[in-house]
Order: sequence, then structure tokens, then C-alpha cells
Amino acid sequence: MATTRAWHLSSRPVGLPTADNFELKEAPLPDLEEGMVRVRNEWLSVDPYMRSRMNDVKSYVPSFQLGEPMEGGAVGKVVESRSPHLEEGETVFHMLGWREEAAGPAGQFNKVPPIPVEDHQWLGNLGLTGATAYFGLLRVAQAKEGDTVFVSAAAGAVGSAAVQIAKAKGMTVIGSAGGEEKCAWVRELGADCAIDYKAQPVVKGLMEAAPKGIDVYFDNVGGEHLDAAFAAARNNARFAICGMIDNYNAGPPPAFRYIMRVIAARIAMKGFIYTDFLPEIGDFYRDMRGWIASGQIKSRETVRDGIEAMPEAFLDLFRGANMGKMLVKL
Amino acid sequence: MATTRAWHLSSRPVGLPTADNFELKEAPLPDLEEGMVRVRNEWLSVDPYMRSRMNDVKSYVPSFQLGEPMEGGAVGKVVESRSPHLEEGETVFHMLGWREEAAGPAGQFNKVPPIPVEDHQWLGNLGLTGATAYFGLLRVAQAKEGDTVFVSAAAGAVGSAAVQIAKAKGMTVIGSAGGEEKCAWVRELGADCAIDYKAQPVVKGLMEAAPKGIDVYFDNVGGEHLDAAFAAARNNARFAICGMIDNYNAGPPPAFRYIMRVIAARIAMKGFIYTDFLPEIGDFYRDMRGWIASGQIKSRETVRDGIEAMPEAFLDLFRGANMGKMLVKL
Repeated sequence: MATTRAWHLSSRPVGLPTADNFELKEAPLPDLEEGMVRVRNEWLSVDPYMRSRMNDVKSYVPSFQLGEPMEGGAVGKVVESRSPHLEEGETVFHMLGWREEAAGPAGQFNKVPPIPVEDHQWLGNLGLTGATAYFGLLRVAQAKEGDTVFVSAAAGAVGSAAVQIAKAKGMTVIGSAGGEEKCAWVRELGADCAIDYKAQPVVKGLMEAAPKGIDVYFDNVGGEHLDAAFAAARNNARFAICGMIDNYNAGPPPAFRYIMRVIAARIAMKGFIYTDFLPEIGDFYRDMRGWIASGQIKSRETVRDGIEAMPEAFLDLFRGANMGKMLVKL
Repeated sequence: MATTRAWHLSSRPVGLPTADNFELKEAPLPDLEEGMVRVRNEWLSVDPYMRSRMNDVKSYVPSFQLGEPMEGGAVGKVVESRSPHLEEGETVFHMLGWREEAAGPAGQFNKVPPIPVEDHQWLGNLGLTGATAYFGLLRVAQAKEGDTVFVSAAAGAVGSAAVQIAKAKGMTVIGSAGGEEKCAWVRELGADCAIDYKAQPVVKGLMEAAPKGIDVYFDNVGGEHLDAAFAAARNNARFAICGMIDNYNAGPPPAFRYIMRVIAARIAMKGFIYTDFLPEIGDFYRDMRGWIASGQIKSRETVRDGIEAMPEAFLDLFRGANMGKMLVKL
């Protein structure tokens, strides 16, 4: 049986993962039966949500299994096909990442839509992170022209997309990021204001940036960022809760000084996963395609090379080492 | 000029209020000009939300002013009228409580609707607390037949109404209360299960009471109760945030071990004040009138006597001394 190099979960992390939790070794590739294809991966995605899949608890995606290959977003090329739906040489995006090659029923692999962009965009602005920003901002938080929107982790993959979508839709945007370099980029993306959370308490920065308060909060961080949003919320503010990277890796449970403002300001807060909105993915492709073509939405990638780089690229997400989308190029 | 005995805010509390923050003294009663009435109060309401009015911060209701009479729900009888809209002897409910008599434009006083109930019900199941339970449960949380609903402070005024409304609408109800006597009453009200939060951690009790999780949480408490609801929420659970009595009186900011479940379970959480729904108050009177008439919704009152009893009655809310609605009878 053929094999491929794949990252396996070798032990479950307690708190922040370490290199010891991962093992790169050969994994079997299923034989290519009728209806199946084999894909050589070219781009692998690392995303913060993968941290929760390393735990052995029920969540919105199944846990990674000990001793088994890990999974995640990937873009690759079909190198062998026994399916009438995919030809050799076609570019596909799929969820059998963390490995060099993948094989399975053709239905597991998505042909890229006919939009002229670089392949890795299907993991970024046209993929999971862009769709998460789009549906979170426009559907979950119902953000609209004229709103003042606060986006945390605004220099990250999802955050940078959210900032630009909000600007494309005529909103006032405040982004937070760690350090002056990231903040400068957030301003370049069009944010009206960038808060360096390493230089001052978020709540102080937000109160100064939005003295009249915020209508929408797009949360990627949780903790002090969410608490600052509680403090700054205007009446009937809407919070789209996309991620809480501050709280993925143990530590004390986050405390909220301003959570009582949920009542006075009638805050509506909602968690979501972008796949809840798959029936509306056509809207996303239509809008995002237009924004990319017009230059209103740009992307930036932090790229690492080679399958060996995966665990460190992933761990670097929690160290804030990425600007924009973190990718591994095979 | 005539005067009346009224409780004044003599100093602002830090943390839990004390008797020293209140002073009973004569306050002027305005002269009765054309269009005005004078009312002798018979029932005064104390409610947890009044605690926030003792602070000097902007909230959904204006702060009490230092040295000025306090305000709150009251029911009384018109004793003098210069308005064609109200006659002497009529029963009215209004917001000039914490005092023996009140005078003002007739528009400040509401004639009780023609529903045959005891007068004090206009401060309870047919008043602020009943309307808060009704709109919170049915409008904010969109609770419906078949849902499993968790109600905190279920032996309190709002909580006991919420439990009974939920049962009247065919829901499964879990209530929490402090101590066996209160829990027994919560079960008497029809709750399928009562959790004594003094006997065990709320989260443990809730997980046992609702092994399949909850669809709705009606929050009167915040803190550990809210955290337990995060832990137990089913997919697409709705939380109506009505109050957070655990957090009204300083103490450390509440910490939430399970708040990240907002994302995985797509929890929708919303704060509200019942006055947001005043345009729909007719629905509430219609339904509540029917439930009271049929015996589906009962009330219980903890009654203190005389204007002098007001501050202690109010402070007893935070000591959990009340079963059902806390009232002062003049």
C-alpha cells in the first residue's frame, strides 16, 4: 500500500501545545478505487480552531484521534483520478491537510470556482478565514453601513478580512493587534484606528478610539478584548463570537468586569461557525470576488516552507507570529 | 407646602448597601395644580435593579440623586384629583415609590386595568416582575413548547413567574434556588427539577438535571449560574439576560470557565429590560390574566410592614430572604 508523510497527534497537550504533541511519519494512502482521486497538497493551512480538536472533548468538530493523522484545510492538485468529476491537474481545496498527499472519494475534494486568484487564496480570503469574517460580520452581527465596528486580532487572517469587509461596506473600523508593526498594517488595510493591546489596556484604547461606543464587535480573542467590548457597547450592540484565542490554552478562566452591561446596553452576543452559512456561500463568492478584483480586499500571508514546518507554524499562531494568513508551502 | 415621609439616598454604597445609605425624612409634595393628582401609597416595591440606581453611573435608568427621594414601583389610591382622567378612590400603579404619598400630573399614574386581582399584583405577576419574566422568556429567548428551560433565582419574583409561564407553555423547567425550602416551593410551582445551589455547585446540579442540555437560560443571577448555563447549553441555545444579582455589589469580576462554548453551541445571549416591550404589553395582560384566572400562575409575597421597613426589605433581597415578590405594605 502507498503511504504519505503526515503529521500525527502523538499526545494531547495540556495548555499550550509543544512540538512533542506532534509526530511526522508515514500514513497509509487508501488504494484508488472507482470514484476516488489522489491529490498532492501544495498549501497547508494552520488555524487557531485546530487547538480545540487536539482536546478529547466534544466540540463542533470531531477531536483528532491519538496516533492518527491530523486534518485541516489544504489546496492541492489532482495527480491521479478514477472519478469523472475531477481530472488530473485540477486544483482542489479540501480538509485532508497536515500531510503531503491525500486520497479519497472525489466528493471530499472541491474544485476551485472559476475566480482568477492565486491558489492559496482558497485557504484565506476565499476560504475558511474569509468566509468566517464575511458571515460573522454581515450575518451574525448584522453589521451595516455607518456602524462602528471593533475587530480583535485585526492583523490575523480572519481579522484582516473582517476589517476590509467592514470598510468595503462603509463602516467605521477599530482594529486591535499586538505591536506597532501589526497596527500599521491594520491601518493600511483601511481601519480608522488601530489599538496596540501590548502598549495599553484594551479597554482604555477602545474607549479613546470610540468615545461614542461600538455597534458591533467581531471577537477572535475573548478575555480582555471581549470585556472591553462589553464596556464600550452602545445600545443594541451585536457581538459575533468567532474565536477566543486568549482562552484556548488553559490558564485561569477569563473574568469580565463589564459583563453586566449586556443588560443595560441590550447587547446581543452570538457564537457561530462559518459552515452554518454554507447554503449562502454563493453570496460570499460573489462579493469577495468583486472586492478582490477591485483591490478593496487584499491578502497577506506568512509562509513557512515544507511539511516539517507545520507544528511550529501552528504554534506560532498563539505567539502572534503571523501577519495575515499563516500557511505552509509544500 | 405639604410634605410626605420619603426615603432619601443619603450616601452612595460601595459594595453591599447598608442602612446608612438611606434616610427617612419629610419631602415636599408639590401643590396640586390643574391636571394633577395626589396618591396615598399602599404597597411599595423593592427590586434588585434599584441597586444600580444607587450608583453614580449611566445605566438604563437614571441614578438616584444624593439627598433626593428614591423612586420605585408603588400601588396606591387617588386621594385628591384635579384631573378629569382619575377620580378619588381609584387604584393606580406608578413609579413614585419609597414614600407615603406622591403627587404629580395624572399621566404619571396608571389606572389599573379591569382585571380582578389583589392590588399588590400590579407590582408582581401583573407588574414589572411578571412582564419581565414574560417578555424575557417568550420574546428575548424565544422559548417554545418542548424546550428545556433553566431559570435561576427561581424562587424570586421574576424567577417564579418565569417558571410558571414556561410550564403554562409546555416547557420542561429546571429552577435553581438557595435552600431546601425554596426548592420545595419551586417544585410546587411546577418546575420539573429544582437545584439547591447552596448544597452543590450549580454546574453539577444542572448537568444532572439536564443530561441532554438546555435550550433556554433565563438569567437573574450571573456568575456561576451563567457559567453553568454555558456548560449545559445545547446547540442554538438562547439566553435571556435579565439580571446578575451575584454581581451587583462589587466583589471580584465574575470568571467563566465555560464561556468558550458560546462558539461551539452557537449560543445567542441577549440582555433586555421589560420596557423594551411596552408596545406589546397588551399580549402580556391578556395571557397573564388568563393564567391567573385558571390558577396556572400563582403568586407568593414576602411582606414587610410600614415605610420604616423599606431599606431592610431591599437589603434582604441580596440576602435571599424573600420567597416570591418582596413588598412593603403601608
